Amino acid sequence: MKSDPLKKLRDEVWAANLEIFRSGLVTMHSGNASGIDRKKGLVLIKPSGMDYDKLRPADLPVTDLSGHKLKGRRKPSVDLPHHLFLYHHCPEIGGVIHTHSNYATALALLGKSIPVYLTAIADEFGAAIPCAPYVDNVGDHIGETILKYRSAAPAILLGHHGAFAWGPTPRAALKAAVMLEDVAKTCYLALLLGKAKALTPKEIKKWYERYHTTYGQTETDD
Amino acid sequence: MKSDPLKKLRDEVWAANLEIFRSGLVTMHSGNASGIDRKKGLVLIKPSGMDYDKLRPADLPVTDLSGHKLKGRRKPSVDLPHHLFLYHHCPEIGGVIHTHSNYATALALLGKSIPVYLTAIADEFGAAIPCAPYVDNVGDHIGETILKYRSAAPAILLGHHGAFAWGPTPRAALKAAVMLEDVAKTCYLALLLGKAKALTPKEIKKWYERYHTTYGQTETDD
Amino acid sequence: MKSDPLKKLRDEVWAANLEIFRSGLVTMHSGNASGIDRKKGLVLIKPSGMDYDKLRPADLPVTDLSGHKLKGRRKPSVDLPHHLFLYHHCPEIGGVIHTHSNYATALALLGKSIPVYLTAIADEFGAAIPCAPYVDNVGDHIGETILKYRSAAPAILLGHHGAFAWGPTPRAALKAAVMLEDVAKTCYLALLLGKAKALTPKEIKKWYERYHTTYGQTETDD
Amino acid sequence: MKSDPLKKLRDEVWAANLEIFRSGLVTMHSGNASGIDRKKGLVLIKPSGMDYDKLRPADLPVTDLSGHKLKGRRKPSVDLPHHLFLYHHCPEIGGVIHTHSNYATALALLGKSIPVYLTAIADEFGAAIPCAPYVDNVGDHIGETILKYRSAAPAILLGHHGAFAWGPTPRAALKAAVMLEDVAKTCYLALLLGKAKALTPKEIKKWYERYHTTYGQTETDD
Repeated sequence: MKSDPLKKLRDEVWAANLEIFRSGLVTMHSGNASGIDRKKGLVLIKPSGMDYDKLRPADLPVTDLSGHKLKGRRKPSVDLPHHLFLYHHCPEIGGVIHTHSNYATALALLGKSIPVYLTAIADEFGAAIPCAPYVDNVGDHIGETILKYRSAAPAILLGHHGAFAWGPTPRAALKAAVMLEDVAKTCYLALLLGKAKALTPKEIKKWYERYHTTYGQTETDD
Repeated sequence: MKSDPLKKLRDEVWAANLEIFRSGLVTMHSGNASGIDRKKGLVLIKPSGMDYDKLRPADLPVTDLSGHKLKGRRKPSVDLPHHLFLYHHCPEIGGVIHTHSNYATALALLGKSIPVYLTAIADEFGAAIPCAPYVDNVGDHIGETILKYRSAAPAILLGHHGAFAWGPTPRAALKAAVMLEDVAKTCYLALLLGKAKALTPKEIKKWYERYHTTYGQTETDD
Repeated sequence: MKSDPLKKLRDEVWAANLEIFRSGLVTMHSGNASGIDRKKGLVLIKPSGMDYDKLRPADLPVTDLSGHKLKGRRKPSVDLPHHLFLYHHCPEIGGVIHTHSNYATALALLGKSIPVYLTAIADEFGAAIPCAPYVDNVGDHIGETILKYRSAAPAILLGHHGAFAWGPTPRAALKAAVMLEDVAKTCYLALLLGKAKALTPKEIKKWYERYHTTYGQTETDD
Repeated sequence: MKSDPLKKLRDEVWAANLEIFRSGLVTMHSGNASGIDRKKGLVLIKPSGMDYDKLRPADLPVTDLSGHKLKGRRKPSVDLPHHLFLYHHCPEIGGVIHTHSNYATALALLGKSIPVYLTAIADEFGAAIPCAPYVDNVGDHIGETILKYRSAAPAILLGHHGAFAWGPTPRAALKAAVMLEDVAKTCYLALLLGKAKALTPKEIKKWYERYHTTYGQTETDD
């Protein structure tokens, strides 16, 4: 059997899809994770309408950056165009995740962005997570809206809809998506009970810089 | 051993019962899922008062459309008449699910319907999910109330009681039941913190039509 | 090896302890389930301060109705006296469960009883679930308070403390404890967002009687 | 292969890290648990940025009390200095846990301490759980703030940040961390719906003393 040159990416995108399900960010068939191989110009994404817990790596269709399916018998997610738009316009992005996770989407329904209330937001996002106004699903409207309204944070809320998160890899996008729902929940709970104040830019920087310089294992550790 | 001509449907109804439990929509013995074989006029439903995690496909009793048990040593759910009423009056329905899932039931207790606040509601339901007034359990009162108050959406809330969801198959009914609780939770969270506005009919149509034409895998894919 | 004449009850009390943990009603070592063999006058209860997921049936100590340990190397729960008090004074009770489940305890902290807002409360409890005022842990204060304030429902909230639930068997007590938290959550959610009205006594009776006459499998079914 | 003189502590610290993940107190890589061998002056802590569910006991780095890594190829958590500060200044502490658990952190974001509203708080904590004002991550600021603001309770909230919990062993610290989130949730729910009153010092003492004298199994039981 021929070895799969996309195997590593395929496994990572499959794992990211599985994890958004296990983490409770998606129910039934909602949501999707994708990843790109920049050298080959190939994108792997969740197939449309398939159960997460039945998904195998081989089920992920492969498309080029125009969305033409090159491999796999499954139809790609209907949200593929939005993922492709981000890959086209943001060369630094290697993975994208879309969910309707409950707390993030509740804030999105109210049009509320998430200021840097918590050190965890400073750590992971480094900036407020904005909420873009509602936009329909026609053409590149969603992709264009994300680019127009995004901050330095690797995630955004979409009014009446849900959330997008991204990162240099599918795994980084997964982390942004999971942390988004986690901080959305904590902030939501606080806002219901009282008034919260954002951290100052100076304090945000302290956390963000520590997290992005000294945190985690280096590649050679693994 | 004789082959079971209902095996496929039996497995699907059993899986739907298992999934409403695993998804946290039901606790202990509450709730039930059923399915119908239209050609044979046979209905399969959860047995009354049995633990979900001990349920095997063979435990599901088979009845005709009048509710006479034809097969199985277990008593059918006491909610069987409401399922049968829907099968009688709605030839397009192939599966029915009843739950007391927490967020849907909290809205039902307050008599609040769920407007199309979210693109996920437009996708799956295409219309507001109404809340019918309280009705007792005598005769066909519940079935009649569902027919009287239902919208184009495949789900309804029943005042002081819980929710019914349905679809062309038990699997489709399961999806409607799970998505109902998911959107009920998100909308509940938003309504506690602020004011939400429904999408316009024009926007609702865009999402619904995309979802019901281009979404999912075709039969021959599987 | 000698057969254990308490094996059936031991397994049922062990299963009830496991289920309150799996259902999320207890965390770490809080909470406990017990059962009584009326003919032998023997009580089995969770040992004090042991992890639920490491508990084996053999870990459950056996005591008489005065609380003297007759068997087992583990110390019984410090809440044993409250269980024994209920067994002493209520010959119809065969199982008792105590938890600090979150929603029930939040209502208990506010001194709020749970009216029969939902058909699920009418089904399982048949009456409002009262909230007794705070009482300390000295002697039989807790047991006396439960008897003084309980309604016809097989569960009660204790101010600033938590909940007790009971039934003719440990399994029935488990069901009451799980359903209590389930309806406490739904009612709590509704009360946060709006005003709820209780069902009338006439309506409550309809649900309760149906549930307690036609629901479930008969013994000989199993 | 040489036997590991830290094996017992290593397994306990590993188990505490696993349990804060399984209990839902942490998501992705946030949070950490540590333990100290006082005789050897050695500390074991979660490695930085590693998935909880992939963590094996051997992944935990060993440091001395100055934070110099003595063993293990993984980098220790960036929060190590705060753990070390507590070990330095509090000889009675043998385990420390840090999380951003949602309910505790929501209260921390609002600067709200947790009075002894519940018997469960009296049992486990014996005193109100204070909320320290926000402090940055420079040097020993976090450790100093914890010492300055802590009560007799083995846990504290840190403004805009999260929670620290501790105890004589990693296992005791785990219990404090899990119980903190549990009571934070119950108190949060009550405070949203109404006004709660704390127990009096006299009542608190009754519960705390019972819990700390008669509760649990003795060492020789196990």
